[in-house]
Order: sequence, then structure tokens, then C-alpha cells
Amino acid sequence: MNFKMIVYIVGHIIKIESLLLLVPVITAVIYGEWQGAVYGILAIALYFIGFAITLLKPKNNVFYIKEGCVATALCWICLSLAGSIPLVITGEIPSFTDAMFEIVSGFTTTGSSILTDVEILSHASLIWRSFTHWVGGMGILIFLLAVIPLTGGSNVNLMKAESPGPQVDKSMPHVKTTAILLYVIYTVMTVLEFVALLLTGLPVFDSVCMSFGTAGTGGFGILNTSVASYPVASQWVIAVFMLLFGVNFNVYVCLIFRRFKNALKNDEIKVYLSMVICSIVVITINIYESCHGLFDALTKSTFQVASIVTTTGFSTADFDAWPTLSKIILLLLMLSGACAGSTAGGLKISRICIAYKTMKMEINSILHPREVKAIKMDGHNLDTKTLRGTIIYIVIYAFILINSVLLISFNGYDIVTTFTSVLATFNNIGPGLSMVGPTANFSFFSDFSKWVLIFDMLAGRLEIFPIIMLFRPSIWRGTVFKHRKTY
Amino acid sequence: MNFKMIVYIVGHIIKIESLLLLVPVITAVIYGEWQGAVYGILAIALYFIGFAITLLKPKNNVFYIKEGCVATALCWICLSLAGSIPLVITGEIPSFTDAMFEIVSGFTTTGSSILTDVEILSHASLIWRSFTHWVGGMGILIFLLAVIPLTGGSNVNLMKAESPGPQVDKSMPHVKTTAILLYVIYTVMTVLEFVALLLTGLPVFDSVCMSFGTAGTGGFGILNTSVASYPVASQWVIAVFMLLFGVNFNVYVCLIFRRFKNALKNDEIKVYLSMVICSIVVITINIYESCHGLFDALTKSTFQVASIVTTTGFSTADFDAWPTLSKIILLLLMLSGACAGSTAGGLKISRICIAYKTMKMEINSILHPREVKAIKMDGHNLDTKTLRGTIIYIVIYAFILINSVLLISFNGYDIVTTFTSVLATFNNIGPGLSMVGPTANFSFFSDFSKWVLIFDMLAGRLEIFPIIMLFRPSIWRGTVFKHRKTY
Repeated sequence: MNFKMIVYIVGHIIKIESLLLLVPVITAVIYGEWQGAVYGILAIALYFIGFAITLLKPKNNVFYIKEGCVATALCWICLSLAGSIPLVITGEIPSFTDAMFEIVSGFTTTGSSILTDVEILSHASLIWRSFTHWVGGMGILIFLLAVIPLTGGSNVNLMKAESPGPQVDKSMPHVKTTAILLYVIYTVMTVLEFVALLLTGLPVFDSVCMSFGTAGTGGFGILNTSVASYPVASQWVIAVFMLLFGVNFNVYVCLIFRRFKNALKNDEIKVYLSMVICSIVVITINIYESCHGLFDALTKSTFQVASIVTTTGFSTADFDAWPTLSKIILLLLMLSGACAGSTAGGLKISRICIAYKTMKMEINSILHPREVKAIKMDGHNLDTKTLRGTIIYIVIYAFILINSVLLISFNGYDIVTTFTSVLATFNNIGPGLSMVGPTANFSFFSDFSKWVLIFDMLAGRLEIFPIIMLFRPSIWRGTVFKHRKTY
Repeated sequence: MNFKMIVYIVGHIIKIESLLLLVPVITAVIYGEWQGAVYGILAIALYFIGFAITLLKPKNNVFYIKEGCVATALCWICLSLAGSIPLVITGEIPSFTDAMFEIVSGFTTTGSSILTDVEILSHASLIWRSFTHWVGGMGILIFLLAVIPLTGGSNVNLMKAESPGPQVDKSMPHVKTTAILLYVIYTVMTVLEFVALLLTGLPVFDSVCMSFGTAGTGGFGILNTSVASYPVASQWVIAVFMLLFGVNFNVYVCLIFRRFKNALKNDEIKVYLSMVICSIVVITINIYESCHGLFDALTKSTFQVASIVTTTGFSTADFDAWPTLSKIILLLLMLSGACAGSTAGGLKISRICIAYKTMKMEINSILHPREVKAIKMDGHNLDTKTLRGTIIYIVIYAFILINSVLLISFNGYDIVTTFTSVLATFNNIGPGLSMVGPTANFSFFSDFSKWVLIFDMLAGRLEIFPIIMLFRPSIWRGTVFKHRKTY
């Protein structure tokens, strides 16, 4: 394990965070808030710490996937630890566990909050919460790759460990080019949403925060009513952009390079759109009676479906009070999430497609044992490694989900609360049902439960492997394993 | 597809069912009940139908796993259809859907009931319900193999399709010998429980019905209070026998042949016992305050853990009113079930062990890519086919679970009811939580939901594949597929 290289990367990340902290500092200057000083001092301190660490450039550049995983996990943990400090010092969230929960929820684009009243926060802290969504959505290490030259084979392994979904498109060989391209698309779309929200009459500050939250598919609101008190036009803008940020960014890359055929071949996006449309139709009919006419029902169902499937977590309605059918559909959308390669969380639709096709193939192989089989996605045959990896991922996902539910159940809250609090954090959604529904928050959980949920948020955002790697003793021992080992 | 052979086997099963119906007939004679005539006439009718079908012995004996699957599924459906007729004709369960639900619940050893008052049933119908548990527990086709000589390679494929768990022990090559041996162990254990229950002061009729229900890990009670009103000694006898029937029967075979080493090597039973003991300890502590002292808490938790982990479903306490931790533990035990090769339902512990070991191996292979791996169970290396089959099974299981929950949610009952009604039937347990809790029943569901749950019960008992095979159009078309096919 190349620990020197890992520390070097963490140092860079700390330096970058010091720059990110300028956003709340500038906001505080504009609004004349004293909290800006806290953010400013922290930014300076972090810059010098990061600078000191990166002075020692390691000679050995060897960097495998396991180093990529550990570096990614440690970077995210350091980012969150440093990012939670100002909230504690300003006294806006005095408990360290709560502040950590809030900032991990920010960076992982979850959007679950422990705050009972967000409106008392300073503008600096509000924009910092929303800005963590934007940074976490596309990934901080991808940002690193875009701006800082790293030598050796490290780049691909860092990107693999951080980017969501079963595979990174092989059509883009240059990691640095890809990283820059992704960030450009991401920024342009965020700006477009910001302008669109301004046009619907939203104030500048609200438009900025909402755009950050939507782009990262985060979900922190800056009002206690989330999005419900904004004009209907703004709600539709946010809903449409949530859906756009749930699309695999490779599709946008294809569109930019005018490879329309490749974009059309994408199976995942077809399933995504079908799921979204079906869910909207069924829920609109299901909640029609409790709404003020068809348009109101359509607005509410579209917004909520977009918010949940992209694992954003904004809300315009208390869907905890909706009929069971609608709630179950939303729960299933929570599980699935949107497209791989987007900023959304969850299992990802492509994994579910692959699992479904594998199942069909296995059943068919009983009926026709001698048939030659091939599973296709986007017009290509999938190799067995991807298939196996996908199925195993789903099983590991289920194990973590079940164990987290067991740990949270020690709190003794009702089953729906227990189950959906894990589902909402592990899939980086935000709100769940019952006591953690859209009108509620996570403040009542014990500190132990909050740390379990913090683990779930990180595991969900980093797609499990980087985080569980940290818990393997062999990572830390650095021992040479025997050649043959049984389990 | 060798349909003639399948019809021939179904014919035999119908003949066997006519003999099984003699149990309620004899009971009716003893208690002087007119319902016996209905059972008697049906028995005679079925005998002649079965006899007529089996007159045509097919010449072609070729019988693959797909024929085994279809034959098994059709046999179970015919068994249930015929078995539900007397309940409708006697008027004890006038609705055909309800009667079918009740009898499928019997044969699949689920024990979910649509009856609000079981005590008004005749003794003949009560013993018929419980007897279906006993028949379904070990499997009707295994019984066929034990008593009727079938030629060709059909035997192993029938056994594979009906027996629960990932694999049939390869140490027993003679299918007929195995079948007889299994039924002898099963019968002897049932008789032992019957005697033990008599000694604790239970009436003969109750002892018979409870023994049938325990042996098949069914769960139909003959009192509205299930087992709660029986003496504590009887409750302990039932609890111990439930746990014994949840053990892989191969362990008993090993003990009979004095292969103690093989019995000790069984990994699954160690996990089973650890799970049971841990669950009992945690639940006893968790429910202590609401019980009358430690012994009462221990009795209730032991009984309920034994009942749920073996997917029997008897109850001595309203565990729906227990704290969330206890309920979540019971829900997880519902998912896991007991050992493969036992009469219990659920995913089976061996599948979970294999999935866990596979996960560990995959995580390790990221850390140490060049390491040679081998996954061991019971001291043997597992082949990749078993591993793949197990993981795929879990994924298919999850898909059916999720789709069933979606269909049941159309009823609009609360989420816990919706989710646990599927869990309780798909894992062949019986009671769930909330509206389908241990003091409730399934009568309030719509007919559509009942048929979904009937499907789940059959899919759960036959371990999915045989039942979903029936829904593959290619089975019925009998077409020759093209050599190369994509999904």
C-alpha cells in the first residue's frame, strides 16, 4: 500500500477545500455576517496544512485500485471533518456529531438534516451547506484530476473509485480531458438552472442555493418548507433540472461530440424515462382526490418523482400522507435511483437492468442449457466481470442495508422510520417516511445511530467499496498474504 | 418438453391425494361429522381420475430439469385445487379464492389463514388443514419417489426441483433410498413430538394437529389463540421440535449412519444455532419489562424465535406489540429462514453463508488481485456454478419480493402490513406484523391480492424456479430456439 501517495492526495484535497471555503466567506462579506471570519480563518489554516503536506511529493507513483479506494475514502472523511468545524465554532450546530452528520449529508448529496429550523442559520452557513452538495455531486477527486497534474497510473484508479455506476465509459481515454469536460457540462447546466430560476422570480440567494442543491442532487433547502413555498413555475424548473442531472453525463458528452447514434443507443436512459413517466402517471391518479385539480396533482407528483428518483430529496408535498401505493412507488424509486454516471445516488438503473437481464438469462439457461448466451447493454456485449461485479454489488448493498436497519432499530422508533432512515441516507436521498418524512428531520436519533447513518451516507455516495476497504485489517497491517487462502 | 411424462406424474399425485383424504374421512367417522362424506366422495373421485390418467404410461422417459420443474409446479397446483374443494362444498370456506388461499397456505407450510374463527371448523377440516402441512413439509414428490418406481433419469430432477436449499447432498446417490430414509426420519420425529405433547397433557386431537403443523413447519393452529392457551411445557416441546425440524435432514442421516465427523463439519447448523441463541438472548432482554419475570420472557422469546426462524408461524405472544428491535430481529429471521434441506422456508441460511463468503472473497480480490481463492462450505470447495446460482437466486428473490409488494400496495393498507404480508407468505411463515400480525388474519385482502400471495406461497415453497417456469411462453410453445439469442 502506497501510503505516502495517499497522504499527498489528501493534502491536495485539503488545499482545495480551503479554496471552496471562500464561497461562504464572500457570502458573509455581502451580508455583513461575523460568521465569515470563522470560515476565513479556517480557510487560511487549511491552506497551510494542505501546503505543508503536499511539500513532500512521493517518488513512488505506483497506484492500484486499492490505493484509489483508500485515498478516496480518506479524502471524503477529511473533507467532511474540516467542513463541519465552522458549524460547531459558530455555534449554529454546537454538537460535533450533528455538524458532521449535516456536512457528510451535504458532501454525499444526501440532504438529510438534523436541523429543526434551517431559517435561523447565517447566509454563510446556508450557502456552505448547499455548496457542499455541488462539490460532492460531481466528486471532489474528479475536480482534483481536472486542475492538478498527477503522474503515473493513479488517475484512472481515483476516478474509478469515486465515479458512480458499474463502469466508466471506455470511449473517453484521457482522464484529465474527461474530468474537465464533465465539470464544464456540470457548471453550464448549473448556471442555466440559476438563470431559469431567476426568471421565475426567485431571489438571487435562493436561486444559487437551489441550483447547487439540484445539480448535486442534494436536497438541502434554505426554508423550513423546502420548495413548497416557491412559485409553481420555479418548482417545474427545479423538477426538470433534477431529471436532467439524473441522466448519465456520457449522454451529454455524446451530444456535444454529435455522436447522436451513441446517445440513442443508451438503454439506461430509456428505462429511466419510462420509469419516471409511469410513476408520475400512477401517482397523479392515486393522489388526485387530495389535490386541487389535475394540474396540482401533476405538479406535486412530477416534482416528488423527480426529487426521489434522482435522490435529491426536495419536497413540495408531505408524501408521507399519500396513499400506500404512491409511497411504495417512491420507496422503490429510492432503491433504484437514477442513471449511472449522473450525480444521483441509489443502486443505479443500469445495475438493475443488468441484474434483470442476468436473471432472464439464468432462467432461460435452465430451459435451454446448450444455448449460447450474451447480455447486451447499449448495443455492446457485457463481459462476465461486469456482470459478476454488478450482482455482487447488489448483494453487498443488501447486507449493509439490513445490518444498518438492525443497528438503527436499537433506538426503538417504529419500523417505517427505522427502515426509511437507512434507505434515505444510504441512497443519498434525504427524507424518508414516518418520523423522517419530508416535514421532519433526523435530530431525534441517538449519536450512535447518527454515526451509523454517516457511514451509510459515505458508503452510498462512494458505492460501498472504498469505505468498507478501510475496515479491512489487511489494509493497515500491510502484510503479505499467503498465496492460498480460504474463506 | 415431455408433456406425456408430466401428465403421468400429475396422475400419480392425484391418486396419492385421494389416499391422503382418508385422514379427514377417518377423523369425521370418529367425531361423527357429516363433512366426512364430502371428503370421502372426493377421495373416490380423485382416485378414479388419477387411475385413468396413469393408465397411459408414456414410452419416452427422457426427463430433464425443465420437465422436473414444470411437473413439480403442476403437481402442487393440482394438489391445492383438489384439496380446496371440500372446504368450499362443506361451506366452511364458501369462497373458492379463500379456500385456495387456505389450502395453498397449508401445502406450502405457510400457515397464513383467511379464517377469523378457526374453532367453528369441523374436526375433519381442521385435521385436513394441519395434515396438508405435514404432506407439504417433506414434499409430495419425494413421497412419490419413495413409494412408486419411476424409470429413467426423472427421479433426480424431480427431487432437485422440489427439495429446498442450494444443493442435495451428493453423498446419497440412490434417490429412492434417500426418499424413504427422509420420510422415515420425518415420521419418527413427528411421532416423538406427538408422544411428548400427550405427556404434557394435551388432548390427542390437539397433539396430532400440532405435531403435523410443527413437522411441516406450517403454523395452522386449531384454536383462535394459536399456542398461547396450551400449558408452558407443551409450548417448550413445540419450540424444541420446531428447531429440530429446521435442521438440515442430512445431519440426521449422518447421525444414523454414525458419520459423526460429517455431521460436525456442517457449517450451516453452527450458524443456525448461533443465530437462534443470539436472537433469543437479545429478545429476552428486550421484552423483559413487559413479561412476568425472566422465565416468562425466555419462554416467549424462545418460542417466537423458533417459530419464526423455522418459518412455522405458531404464536404464544402478540409480537406485533414488542419493541422495534425485537420486531426487526424477527423480520430478519423471516428473511433468512432455517437450514437448507429442512422443512423450513425462507432464503435458507446456507445461501446467506455462501453469499457472505462470496462478498468477502470479492472484496479481498480487489485488495489482492493475484491471490488464489476458494470458498469452502462443510469442508468442501464450492464450485462456481453453485456460487453463481446462489447469488442469482437471492437477486431473483428480491425482484419477486419487490414486485409482490408493489401489487399488494394497490390495496392501500399501511406499509408494514403490505410489506410483511408478502414476507410472511413468500417465506412460508404465516403471520406478519401490523394488520397481518399474530392475532390477525388475511381475510381483508382483495381477491387479486390473495392470488398474488398464493403465487408467492407457491414460489417460496418451490424455491421460485418451478413456478416462474410456468410463465415462460417457450415452455408452452415448445419451439426450438435459435442458436444465438441476446437479452
